[in-house]
Amino acid sequence: MSRTFPQDSVGLVTPQIASFDEPLQLACGRELAQYELIYETYGQLNEQASNAVLICHALSGHHHAAGYHSIDERKPGWWDACIGPNKAIDTNKFFVVSLNNLGGCNGSTGPASINPQTGKPYGASFPIMTVADWVETQARLADRLGIKQWAAVVGGSLGGMQALQWSIDYPERVRNCVAIAAAPRLSAQNIAFNEVARQAIISDPDFHNGDFLEQQTIPKRGLKLARMVGHITYLSDDSMGQKFGRELQAEQLNFDLNNVEFQVESYLRYQGEQFSTRFDANTYLIMTKALDYFDPAAKHGGNLAKTFAKANANFFLVSFSTDWRFSPERSREVANALVAAGKNVAYVDIDAPYGHDAFLIPHQRYLQAFAGFMNRIET
Amino acid sequence: MSRTFPQDSVGLVTPQIASFDEPLQLACGRELAQYELIYETYGQLNEQASNAVLICHALSGHHHAAGYHSIDERKPGWWDACIGPNKAIDTNKFFVVSLNNLGGCNGSTGPASINPQTGKPYGASFPIMTVADWVETQARLADRLGIKQWAAVVGGSLGGMQALQWSIDYPERVRNCVAIAAAPRLSAQNIAFNEVARQAIISDPDFHNGDFLEQQTIPKRGLKLARMVGHITYLSDDSMGQKFGRELQAEQLNFDLNNVEFQVESYLRYQGEQFSTRFDANTYLIMTKALDYFDPAAKHGGNLAKTFAKANANFFLVSFSTDWRFSPERSREVANALVAAGKNVAYVDIDAPYGHDAFLIPHQRYLQAFAGFMNRIET
Repeated sequence: MSRTFPQDSVGLVTPQIASFDEPLQLACGRELAQYELIYETYGQLNEQASNAVLICHALSGHHHAAGYHSIDERKPGWWDACIGPNKAIDTNKFFVVSLNNLGGCNGSTGPASINPQTGKPYGASFPIMTVADWVETQARLADRLGIKQWAAVVGGSLGGMQALQWSIDYPERVRNCVAIAAAPRLSAQNIAFNEVARQAIISDPDFHNGDFLEQQTIPKRGLKLARMVGHITYLSDDSMGQKFGRELQAEQLNFDLNNVEFQVESYLRYQGEQFSTRFDANTYLIMTKALDYFDPAAKHGGNLAKTFAKANANFFLVSFSTDWRFSPERSREVANALVAAGKNVAYVDIDAPYGHDAFLIPHQRYLQAFAGFMNRIET
Repeated sequence: MSRTFPQDSVGLVTPQIASFDEPLQLACGRELAQYELIYETYGQLNEQASNAVLICHALSGHHHAAGYHSIDERKPGWWDACIGPNKAIDTNKFFVVSLNNLGGCNGSTGPASINPQTGKPYGASFPIMTVADWVETQARLADRLGIKQWAAVVGGSLGGMQALQWSIDYPERVRNCVAIAAAPRLSAQNIAFNEVARQAIISDPDFHNGDFLEQQTIPKRGLKLARMVGHITYLSDDSMGQKFGRELQAEQLNFDLNNVEFQVESYLRYQGEQFSTRFDANTYLIMTKALDYFDPAAKHGGNLAKTFAKANANFFLVSFSTDWRFSPERSREVANALVAAGKNVAYVDIDAPYGHDAFLIPHQRYLQAFAGFMNRIET
């Protein structure tokens, strides 16, 4: 049985594991004695190691950003629309590194991993992560791969926040910083939605204060609700309207509580169900907390321009017109601060109906603008 | 111990009960053999019974719209800002009737009431309600009170939908229709938020398929989550930002999952907690379903102008600039349809930062516009 992958696909990819034994000091005050990061790479690192691009993932993302893990895999990686030969992040030119963040649940050490010191899953004992902690682990991974400086650090949403943090924490190691559909910090409303998701998980009786794996269960109800509410914020009112409108699930109204009436209800339940079986509840809590805590300007009295004072990167910011989770206004805050700090910044707002999820969707103007920036990068 | 109520308060009010024995045919196909409605009145009905105003409540509202139930009551009724002597709905001029809708949990027959046929709470067996069903019960209450025609039917949000439905179902019984922060039907996003709330309740192990009272419990976790997510949609991003920003609950970050970090989290949890002890979970399901089902134009192929063809009322529509639950665009849909149908309609969009909740808040421009319309009504 053979299968041909699309010509612009990176094709078959194999994840790799990097183990770290040097203790990691975390922002929360705790430390991790040892940990593993799972990652995959696309393209070839050049001799000068000057063509490496780091992909940072969003809340529920992972290392598998492009290509296929097997000939049977139905869908390619989550950002396959943007990574591959002749794509926006051109693997003929760049060596692309994509990892699962520490605290994740797709292969890197996280709450569902076995704590070597106890022989049991970390569960609730896994420490809180911040965006700066992730940047530190990513810098260690770069060291391991022989990458002294990234040609670009790239991410959407929470991934974009990591790209921004890189430009602040390691100015000499980032030549270009691409932050898509990101924000300089969460608003009260953003935090509120995260808190609803967390409460859904924590109040699920199957959560067992985070040590549910030891009880041979998972807080499925809570995770499902968390994903449902999150999902609404990823889409725009318009895109939900265009996709579902008030289309009925059955021929006519049922007038009961046990059946769904409208297709949007069925869609949301399905999304929640699927997610609840594949994602770790503690990781979800950690990811939403990392979002809440992200506020690099806090150390500078809220002054975002000062925050970027030492950055050396060229910046490329993208927002989407119907994104109400991190609206275009939030990207403009970053752009204005970078201009005020005298940095080299390009910003484009893409008119697209897809809401926050637009950063994952192959919309032509977005891909063109993205490719335009990446193609100008010298390696 | 004596207490003086504010001069512009209707003062002490006493709820009354109206019992109905004529079976009520419901849109869902079922019937209720008998039921009670709790209501209160403010002001005096004139001899011609031509000065009566009906107040329709929103999702979590009830009959206690103005004044105080006792000298110890801390807060007045929920719309006290708009109902009273010399207020927008002037009780020197109008006789105001405010009821708790059928299916509610504040004194009218609802899922938490005892079903006389079984001697147990209705629970899950209580039928689904629609806005048109409520209008029918309100018409019967009007008959009981000797009110052949309302000077005005008034409501905000789901209450505004009832006002619109009145103008359609009983054109000869409504002289003026006031629909504030309403919509002609829910969007897919609106339905999606309702579905998250319902799933939170239904998936709570204490819900017991709706018959939780028989198990001597309530689905507190689910109701709390439902209210938390609802509450976010009642406020604007701006108003949450102004109210809470990223203010910390403690002096500094805790970096743990068990304590709240930001004030907005604490506020939301408190709102959810409070609500979960005072509101019936089945009523919450019924109210959100009534919202989802409201779509008077469905019978007319989606043509809203045709829907209002027979209406005789003068219409007054109000929207609020930062309301993203039922945005100004939704009120404009209604206004445009009414204009197309040749009706007398006044529409005002109020620039206010409070989101959907603005209809409850005594904002000067809103109160002036509201009073301006009500004062012109002849009785």
